[in-house]
Amino acid sequence: MQNFSVVSSFPLKPACTFTIPKYIVKFPPLRLCSRLHTSSLTSSTMDPSPLTIDTINPKVLKCEYAVRGEVVTIAQRLQQELKDNPGSHPFEEILYCNIGNPQSLGQHPITFFREVLALCDHPFLLDKSEISCLFSADSIRRAQKILGLIPGKATGAYSHSQGIKGLREAIAAGIEARDGFPSNPDDIFLTDGASPGVHMMMRLLIRSESDGLLCPIPQYPLYSASIALHGGTLVPYYLNEATGWGLDISELKKQLHAARSNGMSVRALVVINPGNPTGQVLTEENQKQIVEFCKKEGLIILADEVYQANVYVPEKQFHSFKKVARSMGYGEKEISIVSFHSVSKGFYGECGKRGGYYEVTGFSADIRAQIYKLASVNLCSNIAGQILASLIMNPPKAGDDSYESYLAERDGILSSLARRAKTLEDAFNSLEGVTCNKAEGAMYLFPQIYLPEKAIKAAAAAKTAPDAFYCKRLLNATGIVVVPGTGFGQVPGTWHFRCTVLPQEEKIPAVVSRLSEFHEDFMNQFRD
Amino acid sequence: MQNFSVVSSFPLKPACTFTIPKYIVKFPPLRLCSRLHTSSLTSSTMDPSPLTIDTINPKVLKCEYAVRGEVVTIAQRLQQELKDNPGSHPFEEILYCNIGNPQSLGQHPITFFREVLALCDHPFLLDKSEISCLFSADSIRRAQKILGLIPGKATGAYSHSQGIKGLREAIAAGIEARDGFPSNPDDIFLTDGASPGVHMMMRLLIRSESDGLLCPIPQYPLYSASIALHGGTLVPYYLNEATGWGLDISELKKQLHAARSNGMSVRALVVINPGNPTGQVLTEENQKQIVEFCKKEGLIILADEVYQANVYVPEKQFHSFKKVARSMGYGEKEISIVSFHSVSKGFYGECGKRGGYYEVTGFSADIRAQIYKLASVNLCSNIAGQILASLIMNPPKAGDDSYESYLAERDGILSSLARRAKTLEDAFNSLEGVTCNKAEGAMYLFPQIYLPEKAIKAAAAAKTAPDAFYCKRLLNATGIVVVPGTGFGQVPGTWHFRCTVLPQEEKIPAVVSRLSEFHEDFMNQFRD
Repeated sequence: MQNFSVVSSFPLKPACTFTIPKYIVKFPPLRLCSRLHTSSLTSSTMDPSPLTIDTINPKVLKCEYAVRGEVVTIAQRLQQELKDNPGSHPFEEILYCNIGNPQSLGQHPITFFREVLALCDHPFLLDKSEISCLFSADSIRRAQKILGLIPGKATGAYSHSQGIKGLREAIAAGIEARDGFPSNPDDIFLTDGASPGVHMMMRLLIRSESDGLLCPIPQYPLYSASIALHGGTLVPYYLNEATGWGLDISELKKQLHAARSNGMSVRALVVINPGNPTGQVLTEENQKQIVEFCKKEGLIILADEVYQANVYVPEKQFHSFKKVARSMGYGEKEISIVSFHSVSKGFYGECGKRGGYYEVTGFSADIRAQIYKLASVNLCSNIAGQILASLIMNPPKAGDDSYESYLAERDGILSSLARRAKTLEDAFNSLEGVTCNKAEGAMYLFPQIYLPEKAIKAAAAAKTAPDAFYCKRLLNATGIVVVPGTGFGQVPGTWHFRCTVLPQEEKIPAVVSRLSEFHEDFMNQFRD
Repeated sequence: MQNFSVVSSFPLKPACTFTIPKYIVKFPPLRLCSRLHTSSLTSSTMDPSPLTIDTINPKVLKCEYAVRGEVVTIAQRLQQELKDNPGSHPFEEILYCNIGNPQSLGQHPITFFREVLALCDHPFLLDKSEISCLFSADSIRRAQKILGLIPGKATGAYSHSQGIKGLREAIAAGIEARDGFPSNPDDIFLTDGASPGVHMMMRLLIRSESDGLLCPIPQYPLYSASIALHGGTLVPYYLNEATGWGLDISELKKQLHAARSNGMSVRALVVINPGNPTGQVLTEENQKQIVEFCKKEGLIILADEVYQANVYVPEKQFHSFKKVARSMGYGEKEISIVSFHSVSKGFYGECGKRGGYYEVTGFSADIRAQIYKLASVNLCSNIAGQILASLIMNPPKAGDDSYESYLAERDGILSSLARRAKTLEDAFNSLEGVTCNKAEGAMYLFPQIYLPEKAIKAAAAAKTAPDAFYCKRLLNATGIVVVPGTGFGQVPGTWHFRCTVLPQEEKIPAVVSRLSEFHEDFMNQFRD
């Protein structure tokens, strides 16, 4: 509480001196006026004008989010036109390859997960004998167990701000089983997907534009967008396309020191593994170098590990950064790591459930208290998402009734994704002036397109980036939606696009032929 | 895209001039260094220290959230102690009256809603004949209809960033039926509860500390917390406790002009109707005055209308601010209104589902585009919450199989809440030095306690606010959790607490006797 006199910004009450809650900031007029925007002054003290683009928070204007950006808006319009007026375009459907949204393209959810969710949504069913022929025995047992973890079995109640304790214990057990190192349920914060967790950490770390976060380029635009919204600065480190999107420590050093020499306070390193949009899987050796680098430089590791269940090549394997750090002998006190996970990705792809968590290690108790407070301001994440997060970390085990069908569903999806990734990769590499690295993991390919000068000039004339120009042409000709590399960042002067590997397998041949045909026409039109 | 040369903050690539995405902010070193915190400098350029409370975003430190604050943390500890060591306290259970969380205190969900959710979670059930004896016929029809609105029936897919079009159409239809004025599905943004929508509007409106938002005092701390996190200033207008928490236009004028004369740019008026924590329901006449005031002063109305289904007195009725404005002849172009709603409140109290929406009217197309962008950064809200939002705005109708049972559940809950509110109100008013206004709506009572000087001194000695001192004593003696008035704001020198009316009816007598007994002891101990 702070004291001040009535001669303050709010001269109102009889009392001569009084206390008000901290959040009511006192404004010494001088200090304020000196900082005041004219625009605000006009809009506030003169005849008030409605909100305009010039009077909103400029950080919002700065923020960009390409995976739902202009190309997608055009696609939504085309889809409506196809609906209202079939045959109005040279294609019958819009194929959304812009976003990792498997179930929107026909992937089926994992049956066991949905059984448990349905029973938890309507526990009344658990008292009915009829369910034995509708639900697997272990889904019934699991639902009963989960409801037992929820005070009053109330799936409609706000939970603890970090998420239901029993579910966090289950997730911590899953992490231990994955890593072979202990995990503490109190370190787990359940979230509505990974994004809110990333925003929360940006909110905690960013004080001003002089706070920087090292991010890979190309990166997933959640990072550029959240850094822009919170008013910080993205410090890029470029992945090496020539070595399959390798992460070079020398590049990290160069960028960190360049930023620091410009007076930046670099707070954390964002690393996405498996990579998005790049699809590479880091080697354990490389991860050790990254941990060593962050340890030495005092950087927090923000580890985006949402694709941990999507690895397609036998020679690579997912290792969490926490596991790598612990295996190097760095404990709680030696290094700060935040690991983000989500129910939206993996083979389950439950994007619409908005479930996820982050595991926070290596922070002091008072920082933890601030993170808890941030979580509590939004009360809690949705309970179905919390339940699902506990399920992906504790799927059916050998001996459970659902085990065989679960394995079949899982392996069916993963092997199909691997085949689709390979087919698309080969297709891209067969195109004139296109090179594409292998997708070792995640759900994306990020081919580079060498655009003819004529195409680049045409793009400039159309006031659009060359890769966006290409992607819009592709969309209008084929209905295929991909995202221009500009939205992810790329080595200046190079052009890419991100394409998911998610179209259902039977559609892949059509995608390939439509893509190839378009590309050939495009090159014929613009070849120098 | 912006151009600059290699002699920039990131001197790395061979190319001499190149373009990088907008979000990579260039830093002219001079400009930066002049603004740099020493703390950042030390932590970045010298031997780096781990994150400390002095180096996090100070806005996070400033933010407070009392409904999940200190008293609740103590309660969670006591609950654990009772579990580990039964009989260790003079009560058997913790009674959480700190937060509007009905199902955590035993309220049952509305059956129809849960039937629909379960069927949408596991659509496989819809093909099974057995469900006819497990689900109501109209819940089956409704689930089929809703799945038909979702592309590919994919409840596991990300939706349109604003929410599923067909569900927004259903919500708009519900709003029209409620108000008698048109509602546009494109004005609806579905959210994970009301809170994220409020944060989104604060993000849009707040540029700096010189941007102010008029908020009622007492207020729900979501507003003080989100304003603090986004770096704006809460401009308080005090509700008149003497007239049943009346909202006086003269007070609004006084506060607005005081703030403006201090150079503040006041952007919007937050109004909570029915009131939280105060429980009053505004008269239509009063709402017209508020609309007129905001129209004249060019203020956006941020209308928290999440308790619209919780009105307990026959003489009062809920009217949305949009309906009132339209009935006064103010259209889309004349006034900006944002109406927030949630599935967490009402008689359904589905807090754990995190569903809600806000309806945005009276903003230009370019501002709308910015709001859409903010929504898209988090992709979409959870689909079950979206479905539930469409259900609360379109419940079973006369003729539907569930109609009778739905009415019985609804009226049972509402009439019980009204009885509980009255019983607690009378109980508070019967206590020495306590006065309590009637709860006309919402779920709370906000009694004023006239604390003896001796108690205030004791609180000061304990370095705590007098109302917090009282609430902690109450908790330790009875296990009843209420929130100190300090967390909501109150006329300086007055002390209150917020108590929900949600304990199940059979428990109310015990609550009353425990409260009364405690209060008598407290007063005996501290009476001057």
